[in-house]
Amino acid sequence: MLRGLSAATDPASITAIVNTADDTVMHGLNISPDLDTVTYTLAEAIDPERGWGLVNESWRTMESLARYTPQRPSGSTAGGTWFNLGDRDLATHLYRTARLDEGATLTEVTAEIISSWGLPQTILPMTDAPVRTRVRVDGAWMAFQEYFVGTRHSVAVEAIDFAGIEQAKPTNAVLDALHTTPCVVIAPSNPLVSIGPLLAMPQLRDVLVRRRDRVVGVSPIVAGAALKGPADRMLVELGHEPSVVGVARIYAPFCSTFIIDDQDADRADEVRALGMRCIVTDTIMKSPEVSAALGRTALEALA
Amino acid sequence: MLRGLSAATDPASITAIVNTADDTVMHGLNISPDLDTVTYTLAEAIDPERGWGLVNESWRTMESLARYTPQRPSGSTAGGTWFNLGDRDLATHLYRTARLDEGATLTEVTAEIISSWGLPQTILPMTDAPVRTRVRVDGAWMAFQEYFVGTRHSVAVEAIDFAGIEQAKPTNAVLDALHTTPCVVIAPSNPLVSIGPLLAMPQLRDVLVRRRDRVVGVSPIVAGAALKGPADRMLVELGHEPSVVGVARIYAPFCSTFIIDDQDADRADEVRALGMRCIVTDTIMKSPEVSAALGRTALEALA
Repeated sequence: MLRGLSAATDPASITAIVNTADDTVMHGLNISPDLDTVTYTLAEAIDPERGWGLVNESWRTMESLARYTPQRPSGSTAGGTWFNLGDRDLATHLYRTARLDEGATLTEVTAEIISSWGLPQTILPMTDAPVRTRVRVDGAWMAFQEYFVGTRHSVAVEAIDFAGIEQAKPTNAVLDALHTTPCVVIAPSNPLVSIGPLLAMPQLRDVLVRRRDRVVGVSPIVAGAALKGPADRMLVELGHEPSVVGVARIYAPFCSTFIIDDQDADRADEVRALGMRCIVTDTIMKSPEVSAALGRTALEALA
Repeated sequence: MLRGLSAATDPASITAIVNTADDTVMHGLNISPDLDTVTYTLAEAIDPERGWGLVNESWRTMESLARYTPQRPSGSTAGGTWFNLGDRDLATHLYRTARLDEGATLTEVTAEIISSWGLPQTILPMTDAPVRTRVRVDGAWMAFQEYFVGTRHSVAVEAIDFAGIEQAKPTNAVLDALHTTPCVVIAPSNPLVSIGPLLAMPQLRDVLVRRRDRVVGVSPIVAGAALKGPADRMLVELGHEPSVVGVARIYAPFCSTFIIDDQDADRADEVRALGMRCIVTDTIMKSPEVSAALGRTALEALA
């Protein structure tokens, strides 16, 4: 979506506000998967097949780490290799960790990383405070990455919790961007665990509610299914309808315009009945051209 | 020296007590250069040309880190690549850091690492408390690795300080080993910054003094020069004689027997005048055979 928007308008005018509740600390390193995926994607450095991490990656450190894993005592999670960190990717975590240890904010570090990749866009973590998504599975809380990567989201989620969210505040940079932009686009991402943490901060949600006429959402669900990830199943598991209408119900309070896929054209009236404008178009971004067209549609929707 | 001792006796009977005052935290990772050098050496995995780090190493992470270094703000040391950490070597630091974060002691982590490499020897950090060598250069204190690696020890040292040494205690495992062993060998290492931190802990030094007749030292200085590193210059800079006699003066209070090289045979009487037995032999371990012979000499010296 960000690539599409960057093709549709001046990339330097774009600010991405990114979920940090997927962040984790592993091997002592601060890892921000969503920030890095956005950065690497915009830098055209993401591995196109995996969809995460860097292209031309190698795995020497992880391969070497496997030597130590069998020797850890029971109960220890040290030396875990299930969360695969490539050799090139590790550099990003080393830099981030060193800067945070020096007292920099995640916002500052992210700006430095973005600048290192020569990106014209602004990328902002939603907050500088630590927030950690946990999911309840079979009655027990599990860290998000353990669920998402460890189990490959193969288990049913009973509840979601954003630990630390009460203490977290959106940064001033985030609030300024949301206050002043002519158009907020909610990307087609998991409404519960990717967009959800942002909405769980009242100050952020309030700006969206107040600027509802400037907010356009793109449905992450097409014909009842998520194109990527567990959003569809997770919606069902947590009592939502896994459809454009189910997502529209979540977004209606702060989103005036909802873009759904051609395949869901028959649900457009139900979306409109929720008090939203509904735009029906091709939302499956299988080429740069479709992405750019969708970017234009989103920006023009409120123009 | 440890290889020579391991060839001269049952390796499982050997305990190495290792300096940890060279330890540092970089990129959020706990790095113990001396422990790792001992481990990699005994595992025959050390790079023979560099003399540190692992053989068959690659440098992808450090190469990638260089992208970020120019973007750090002035005053920041994040993203530094002057302390070169190989991709394979990084795995050791990741494991150590994760275990220390879990509350393990450095002694415990080291035992796990040793076990992972299948080593029969015991390797003990001198203490589980953080101690950091600093050197004063031109009136300003500098962290040891900055001096040793950063400047390649090319600057004159005015003073040495082991920050944290007052709070540090040798571990029980270290004291037990020193109390019970029939023979303590002081390896030919820098007397001031490699052996010095151990001696700076009164509890450790006291055991050596009490067991002086069980302690044999090997001179790190041959014909007035260190075979490796800045020990000779550092001795001069700090007011010692850069010779076997200069080192013998430091060791005499807790070391009954001193092994010096054939090239220093003419100084043997001066060593003896300090109240030490003096053995003159080939101490330049340029082959496994010479190392083993030196190991045997050291062990037999007290037999």
